[in-house]
Amino acid sequence: MTVRVAVDALGGDRGPDEIVEGALLAAGTGIEPVVYGPARLDTRGLAHVEAGEAIEMDESPVDAVRAKPGSSLVRAVRAVAGGEAQAVVSTGSTGAMLAASLLHVRRLPGVLRPGIAVVLPARRGPSVLIDAGANADARPEHLLQFAHMGSLFAQEILGVAEPGVRLLSIGEEPEKGSQLALEAHELLRASTLRFEGNTESKRLLEGDADVVVTDGFTGNVALKALEGAILTTLLSLREELESSARGRLGGLLIRPGARRLRDRLDPEAHGGAYLLGLRGLVVIAHGSSSRVAVANAIRLAALGVEHDVVGRLEERLSSVAARPDPAASGSAAAQARTEH
Amino acid sequence: MTVRVAVDALGGDRGPDEIVEGALLAAGTGIEPVVYGPARLDTRGLAHVEAGEAIEMDESPVDAVRAKPGSSLVRAVRAVAGGEAQAVVSTGSTGAMLAASLLHVRRLPGVLRPGIAVVLPARRGPSVLIDAGANADARPEHLLQFAHMGSLFAQEILGVAEPGVRLLSIGEEPEKGSQLALEAHELLRASTLRFEGNTESKRLLEGDADVVVTDGFTGNVALKALEGAILTTLLSLREELESSARGRLGGLLIRPGARRLRDRLDPEAHGGAYLLGLRGLVVIAHGSSSRVAVANAIRLAALGVEHDVVGRLEERLSSVAARPDPAASGSAAAQARTEH
Repeated sequence: MTVRVAVDALGGDRGPDEIVEGALLAAGTGIEPVVYGPARLDTRGLAHVEAGEAIEMDESPVDAVRAKPGSSLVRAVRAVAGGEAQAVVSTGSTGAMLAASLLHVRRLPGVLRPGIAVVLPARRGPSVLIDAGANADARPEHLLQFAHMGSLFAQEILGVAEPGVRLLSIGEEPEKGSQLALEAHELLRASTLRFEGNTESKRLLEGDADVVVTDGFTGNVALKALEGAILTTLLSLREELESSARGRLGGLLIRPGARRLRDRLDPEAHGGAYLLGLRGLVVIAHGSSSRVAVANAIRLAALGVEHDVVGRLEERLSSVAARPDPAASGSAAAQARTEH
Repeated sequence: MTVRVAVDALGGDRGPDEIVEGALLAAGTGIEPVVYGPARLDTRGLAHVEAGEAIEMDESPVDAVRAKPGSSLVRAVRAVAGGEAQAVVSTGSTGAMLAASLLHVRRLPGVLRPGIAVVLPARRGPSVLIDAGANADARPEHLLQFAHMGSLFAQEILGVAEPGVRLLSIGEEPEKGSQLALEAHELLRASTLRFEGNTESKRLLEGDADVVVTDGFTGNVALKALEGAILTTLLSLREELESSARGRLGGLLIRPGARRLRDRLDPEAHGGAYLLGLRGLVVIAHGSSSRVAVANAIRLAALGVEHDVVGRLEERLSSVAARPDPAASGSAAAQARTEH
């Protein structure tokens, strides 16, 4: 089986050639990248669909997606909707990817909001954080759905038979947290998931749970705090060591180890994040992605297709909805309000 | 001038003797600690008020504060309300300190919610994060008040003449963020503060702003994510280095530098956080505080008294309220709902 992955060549900080290099790294052994980018772009033999218009980071996502149907981002997303590709990868604006996906790929039946699932490189093994930023505001029933999505992700992609789920809050006790966290806690407790209670953000890199569920605002703040703190700690250590001869020698000796650590903790290691809850497989990669990160994102997309993440998610969510699950209540009204 | 600081000897993870040691370190040169703790406690010559009952971490804060008026925590807080001390420091439950302070010290006129202000050890210098967890839910007008409190803190304690204020959100653009962040952004923009726009959590340890304002849920998640990531990065580096002879030698050489870095980034360095917006000076220290951290917390409390943080905050808030400031609208209704 060969998986065709639509790759948006525009939107990355390092330019389209870096994206092409990443696509080349991922090509072969079951993956066929299709590059969506400007006519002048040399795709080095990879399939090429000409789409030169770019969506900029500072554009309103919804307006840009509507105004630029011929942009590389929208064309690549539509390739999944139209069946020309089985997955799409972009390093462009998360908001634009979300808007284009909602408009063209559309939500799975019963899905209130798509959620962004990222893999945290925790000490005890990978841990899925969802929602990492698709929705700035959320309601308790959204968090319950994110938990089901994250649980399925952990099963299919991380190979965890019965994933443990925790809710991100500001204390481990069930009565600690915002109104949203308290209500989500109750829904999770009453669900069929293996819910293990709250967790705190200081434990995120330890990996107390296979899946950590939160709203997109909190998830995005937590994720970026981790990224910033890891980088600042390593950078500050280097500065600290430069102040003495002993430190400089030590710094030289630890360089390979520090680099391995940086690579291991690097949020780019997994190359991208799934946008879950849609009728097709959508992967969003960091704007700063290197060719290696782009290749990893394309492989992650292909892996999702091979494991039929979309199909299994549809099954899972319909079986949940069929039960007398608290998530079902009010979902019609919620759906009506969810168009971005 | 000598500042009398009521010190709660119970509630710390390391036991009351460690708190006494911290109080001894801080005693003298203008600081007179008064220890509130069990009769059997040896306070090594420091003033001692017998109060043996403890409030446990798993108790409901409001219930515990009401049920245990003779506890060391409540007695120490009441010492400030009654004028026996000018400030109070506790390593006990944040929730109980908040509840006891609201009940006994009470809010300054016009204050909707007290906020926790912590100093982040950012690369460009100290930066105040407020609210770091006093309120799990907040409204835009609360964030505006937190910004004024944080700004005054930066002026009085950090010595910044005209502090720059930023709002923590999930994008630098004003239109990015939750409904709460969007509305708070508008209030901050219309205020008399030196508002410099949004900031993201990945920049918190860089120190882009003198004051970073957010709601207590987000602030607590961000703070704990930073703490966890710093510790995990240093711990992971040590593990990584142990895997080779070269790494082990390098690890030995960098040890002093790494320790200096850990101390500099250590959230305990400043020893505690102010609970701002009250009629008295309240400092909350980490439960895990060492004697050094306890001493720093007591010094921070004394510094706040010397700079009359409470008096100046009252002036500032009343001058803000006197202007046609958006914060004034709806504050009466908000106050009615704010009793914890």
